[in-house]
Amino acid sequence: MRDAVRQATLAELAEHGFRGLTVENVAERSGVHKTTVYRRWGNVEGLIADALELAAHEPWPVPDTGTVEGDLRGVVELVRSGFEDPELGPVSSAFVAAAMQSPEAARALHAFFEARHDQSAQVVRRGVERGELPVTVDAREVVRVAVAPVYYRLFVAHEPVSREDAGRAADAALAAARAGVL
Amino acid sequence: MRDAVRQATLAELAEHGFRGLTVENVAERSGVHKTTVYRRWGNVEGLIADALELAAHEPWPVPDTGTVEGDLRGVVELVRSGFEDPELGPVSSAFVAAAMQSPEAARALHAFFEARHDQSAQVVRRGVERGELPVTVDAREVVRVAVAPVYYRLFVAHEPVSREDAGRAADAALAAARAGVL
Repeated sequence: MRDAVRQATLAELAEHGFRGLTVENVAERSGVHKTTVYRRWGNVEGLIADALELAAHEPWPVPDTGTVEGDLRGVVELVRSGFEDPELGPVSSAFVAAAMQSPEAARALHAFFEARHDQSAQVVRRGVERGELPVTVDAREVVRVAVAPVYYRLFVAHEPVSREDAGRAADAALAAARAGVL
Repeated sequence: MRDAVRQATLAELAEHGFRGLTVENVAERSGVHKTTVYRRWGNVEGLIADALELAAHEPWPVPDTGTVEGDLRGVVELVRSGFEDPELGPVSSAFVAAAMQSPEAARALHAFFEARHDQSAQVVRRGVERGELPVTVDAREVVRVAVAPVYYRLFVAHEPVSREDAGRAADAALAAARAGVL
């Protein structure tokens, strides 16, 4: 049942965004009775938080190209292209929008990104093991600095993000890590 | 009249956020008749777009410390501390939230950030003139990469941003610029 409700939440988010998300529509789409959805998930914020919690535990295709440059570029490009995906993109954007309007969704999105930073940080740790980066490097901070310009362009400055922009953001974080700043 | 409506829009955003913004409340607060506000601004998105347009043309205290490191750190700290300001913070956050939900607000926020990038880029251009950075540097991209981690923590990963975090973000962008990546 949890998965059915979650799939319905994601599908409704993809179609109507956070503002168009209702418990009624999720209940109808999932085939779960409305009163059950209200009892177990409370409201749309609860639905979003639960979908995010499940998403945080999903495996993520962390790149393994043999160099930290290739891997970090791969991570940032994965983020960028995810927002261009016709199914994944609108859902991811809806999560970011929801978290700006609901503290419960914000807590869930925070936990989701903690998991993502942790998963992605292994590309930096492997780089340290290979001697490509200083041992003092803060692996999660390198990830944050690498992906931040993609999100900044998309959700703050509302600018397009090209594959080149994504690659440059990864290279910038690496240059800072090599210089001992991160 | 435009300024009265704008001040009322900012005050309402500070108190109630984007979701609590109504043409009625702005009209009442500004002393401008409701039908006039509807006729000239259309809706809440129009009110936000107009307030942002005025904000984009406001002077901004671009730091001038004598070094590009001091100046860029100053720019990023200005951004970070702005979100901690009890009056400015909620309004700025409301603008970011509004742009996620309204294409008109997104266009206005984009124009606002174009102006901010342009103003802030002078600290990078001065660094180039002083020989601190390569002449090939993309000044606006340095600004984007410097401020992006602050916005990423606040509006995406929902993490706190310390003064140290802001300084490190500026230093990271500079290290990348010095390495010829930006």
